[in-house]
Amino acid sequence: MQKPPASVGQRLDEVDTPALVLDLDAFERNLAALQRSAGGRVRVRAHAKTHKCPEIARRQIAFGAIGVCCQKVSEAEAMVEGGIQDVLVSNEIVGAQKIARLAALAERARIGVCVDNAENLKDLRDSKAKLDVYIELEVGMRRCGVPPGEAVVALAREVSGNLRFAGLQAYHGRAQHVRSLAERKAAIERAASAVRETKELLKRNAIDCPIVTGAGSGTYMFEVESGAWDEIQPGSYVFMDADYARNEWAAPLPRFEHALFVLSTVMSRPAAGVAIVDAGLKASSVDSGMPSVWQRPGLAYTRTSDEHGCIEGAPPPALGEKILLVPGHCDPTVNLYDWYVCVRNGKVEALWPITARGAVY
Amino acid sequence: MQKPPASVGQRLDEVDTPALVLDLDAFERNLAALQRSAGGRVRVRAHAKTHKCPEIARRQIAFGAIGVCCQKVSEAEAMVEGGIQDVLVSNEIVGAQKIARLAALAERARIGVCVDNAENLKDLRDSKAKLDVYIELEVGMRRCGVPPGEAVVALAREVSGNLRFAGLQAYHGRAQHVRSLAERKAAIERAASAVRETKELLKRNAIDCPIVTGAGSGTYMFEVESGAWDEIQPGSYVFMDADYARNEWAAPLPRFEHALFVLSTVMSRPAAGVAIVDAGLKASSVDSGMPSVWQRPGLAYTRTSDEHGCIEGAPPPALGEKILLVPGHCDPTVNLYDWYVCVRNGKVEALWPITARGAVY
Repeated sequence: MQKPPASVGQRLDEVDTPALVLDLDAFERNLAALQRSAGGRVRVRAHAKTHKCPEIARRQIAFGAIGVCCQKVSEAEAMVEGGIQDVLVSNEIVGAQKIARLAALAERARIGVCVDNAENLKDLRDSKAKLDVYIELEVGMRRCGVPPGEAVVALAREVSGNLRFAGLQAYHGRAQHVRSLAERKAAIERAASAVRETKELLKRNAIDCPIVTGAGSGTYMFEVESGAWDEIQPGSYVFMDADYARNEWAAPLPRFEHALFVLSTVMSRPAAGVAIVDAGLKASSVDSGMPSVWQRPGLAYTRTSDEHGCIEGAPPPALGEKILLVPGHCDPTVNLYDWYVCVRNGKVEALWPITARGAVY
Repeated sequence: MQKPPASVGQRLDEVDTPALVLDLDAFERNLAALQRSAGGRVRVRAHAKTHKCPEIARRQIAFGAIGVCCQKVSEAEAMVEGGIQDVLVSNEIVGAQKIARLAALAERARIGVCVDNAENLKDLRDSKAKLDVYIELEVGMRRCGVPPGEAVVALAREVSGNLRFAGLQAYHGRAQHVRSLAERKAAIERAASAVRETKELLKRNAIDCPIVTGAGSGTYMFEVESGAWDEIQPGSYVFMDADYARNEWAAPLPRFEHALFVLSTVMSRPAAGVAIVDAGLKASSVDSGMPSVWQRPGLAYTRTSDEHGCIEGAPPPALGEKILLVPGHCDPTVNLYDWYVCVRNGKVEALWPITARGAVY
């Protein structure tokens, strides 16, 4: 674990770079906006894959979330270690070691897990772990999951022993970044049909389906308004990244604010109109495009390499000047850092360790 | 820092996933091949940005390297902490905090640094640190650096106080991944002309230029054969990634072997011919393309998301099967992990901590 690049009480411009900066005011407004839009209508189970930090999970719960989701057993371990008592691993967990770790975790907290395969379900049952089991329904994600139909019923019937059938995981990840609001809504309407059809099928087979969970920051109000989901799993809403910002945002979805930044320093001015900053793709993940330059409308981050970024435009920043970048994609960017440098009114208020950084297994 | 996903003595198929696996035999053959091709003709200063691990740096030195390069002060700190006594930060270091840390490091080891700006050079001089200073020459990289000409002479004249003018940093990063060997050679010939011209200019101005350093794994033999470089800085040769493998390889460059892998597990088999593995873009960086599937010629890793990868083809792997992937780009992939799981003859021989993982500032 690296040392923090800042200390509490420093001014933002004194923070060493690159640093992952969290604007606490914007972050808290995002927490409130999520709860205001959806809180009274469904359960909120915030996705911790985005932030990997129990400090943030605790604040999400303080704002009304009932717990968190994780994608990995090791992420769930970090959350339970950090005091979170209700964790859904919104993913299939396959392999003897992982299942043993999941079972150990279920002794310490309420743990849910997803399945899409009878063999895997048997392994989970044989572990004797007390787990909430959600069947993952394929609703357009084209990744894991069981298509709607009899296969869901067959799998639900196999949930026994210490396992409890908790319901359906129905997440349409591909819909989240579709730019057009109308197209996102249409995608979720199709997913909602699949969910309703599956719930009716389970009901006809006298199988109780307590919870349907899913949805992300780009669509969750459509899931809420459909009435087909009981619980939503937004993650990115806490930070908002440059890629999400390219979506069309309008009611019923609130427009979340950018709260997460990479602070960088101009380390070279090799030519007129060109500044090289010390934040490259090891400082801001470029899988969903380049970072954008914050509140400097004449400047663009035009290309990247491992440790360098190129900023072009006017007026060019001076050598040594510090520049805030909005990451292209927040989740993998967070995963590059050990610390959030939490800032309010231009000063470092706190340093939060990203304890699930690198929790990949 | 995460716990290691393996223990010494385990079989590879017992290692939890995703895990970063180093094939020790291939790694050692790569160390030997580099030294065999270039070792007698120039100094080798291996680039530690690739591996971020003093255990590997020590082995590079045991095979003949005179020290390492780093891109960040924090990387250099990790190397010195790990016992490496000769480190060149092959990058500009700008800002009071970074320069103070560099100065502190120069009390503990021989430290070099690059400059391309007189103001920055003055800040380094004012720190009173004893540093080897290399002027970075722009030779086609289009990043930092001073173009060949009088500006280099002017800057070299300003190197004074505890600073020592050690020579030129001349790295053509863009040439490394040009696919055609002939085009790579031509790019380095142009860079060599710029280097020779600059050396002659310095000589005419009675400025001694002790060392020209630069070159990467994709071109270094062209730098060696040009006679214009005294020292090379290859990094990726230790691992070889899928992107480098797409280069045309022929004499005078040896063909390095893939030594670095991401071990993944099939976690879902949602459809015929489709397997989902638990290694997505947080496990294998996709900035230079998808990982390739190792020694399974019918299979391709076709798409990725944060925690999932899609493998398509025949024969499809079974649920729970472990699959080795060759990362698209080794450097940012290494930066996602805390441990190398070092394997020989199918068994875990050692676990090496990646102490400069996340050393971004």
